[in-house]
Amino acid sequence: MAIISSKDNKRIKDAKKLYQKKYRTTSYLIEGLHLYQEAVQAGARFKQIFVTEKFAHIPEATLVSQEVMRFLSDTETPQGLIAEVAFPSCHEQAEELQKVLILENVQDPGNVGTMIRTADAAGFDGVVVTGGSADIYAPKVLRTMQGAHFHLPIFQENEAQALYQRLKAQDMTLIATTLSPASVDYRKLVRPEKFALIMGNEGAGIASETEKTADILAHIVMPGRAESLNVAVAAGIVMFSLTDD
Amino acid sequence: MAIISSKDNKRIKDAKKLYQKKYRTTSYLIEGLHLYQEAVQAGARFKQIFVTEKFAHIPEATLVSQEVMRFLSDTETPQGLIAEVAFPSCHEQAEELQKVLILENVQDPGNVGTMIRTADAAGFDGVVVTGGSADIYAPKVLRTMQGAHFHLPIFQENEAQALYQRLKAQDMTLIATTLSPASVDYRKLVRPEKFALIMGNEGAGIASETEKTADILAHIVMPGRAESLNVAVAAGIVMFSLTDD
Repeated sequence: MAIISSKDNKRIKDAKKLYQKKYRTTSYLIEGLHLYQEAVQAGARFKQIFVTEKFAHIPEATLVSQEVMRFLSDTETPQGLIAEVAFPSCHEQAEELQKVLILENVQDPGNVGTMIRTADAAGFDGVVVTGGSADIYAPKVLRTMQGAHFHLPIFQENEAQALYQRLKAQDMTLIATTLSPASVDYRKLVRPEKFALIMGNEGAGIASETEKTADILAHIVMPGRAESLNVAVAAGIVMFSLTDD
Repeated sequence: MAIISSKDNKRIKDAKKLYQKKYRTTSYLIEGLHLYQEAVQAGARFKQIFVTEKFAHIPEATLVSQEVMRFLSDTETPQGLIAEVAFPSCHEQAEELQKVLILENVQDPGNVGTMIRTADAAGFDGVVVTGGSADIYAPKVLRTMQGAHFHLPIFQENEAQALYQRLKAQDMTLIATTLSPASVDYRKLVRPEKFALIMGNEGAGIASETEKTADILAHIVMPGRAESLNVAVAAGIVMFSLTDD
């Protein structure tokens, strides 16, 4: 079996570019056995799979040296498996879903990934990530999502306000979270049949336009002294309060 | 006003060592205006305060050059204020508290910091971090805690099992979280008067000994497809289900 042992190899150099958003037009990289297995189960299409000796048994894999794997990896201790996965060719529409999480301008990749993972656990059926948020195919987002993007559809949407209008026209209730105690205590929410939960930016919260557009504004009552919660923790608390019994 | 402009200055070199746990015997570093203000409000004792020109008005501050600030900072974009804070000289006892969060071998600094911040928001009155967990005075933990350690006492405890026995002897109910659906649905928990909530390691969960010692094992029902939640999100969901009404 041939082995790629040079970092200057064109396939390696081209693959590494996929860590930059501008090169991710048709595919992205995933790393590690767990995500690879999730991708296989989801029927994802692989463009190429780079492995070290340890994973040489994987079908269609291309063997690379440890040094090339370290070069190609986004982590400090590479597991020895990096796959290039094609973007799904068609998507459902966000409008057809019942229970959607919307991330409005959430910037930290770890927060974006964790919230999508939580939405998957809570039984939401889709996620929309609006412009200004971390790119969902960035390595850190993929690591923290732990394969959730293979379980539920994720949309990227530049025009948040236009999306909200479309969702409202489809009888979807928009619930936006705020820090304001003048809004509804999340524990008093009666779960609508079709709804979207909007989580805002780490520092600034939801946009002021969103505050006007949303059907319901809700907040988490905090009996303690901290002024706010991490957005991913807040999202988890509200999402699980809106799960089925 | 004198200015320190050399990274070789002994005070600077000694201060920088405080990022390493072995040197944090009597003090630790905090960075940025927000944490400094929290420390002032909490009546913390400062050993020294390094600032750039921007914060030269701060009482007792030592002026340093931008270059020295960058050297001393743990962040990529230093705000220009780093203070050395003395450890509090005496602590309450964990046994005197009513509502305690225990982090058992939680390794990721971001998770440890976020959970302490959430405990502060949820109105818990103390946190115990057991051996094997990330050190609470590590820079990343301090950043994610956002000053919570100035609001509630935090104990470091090497012998988790001995602690649990002491807490039980004080009529504290130990609630440990698991992934097992054979345990209690967290929504069915009746909040005990005095309790400690135990969150386990990111990968391995709580120790098998803890499973035997705990009075109640509880889990979060996940209607979706993800196999688990991020531990800080899970802690947030359970802590807020145990807050006062």
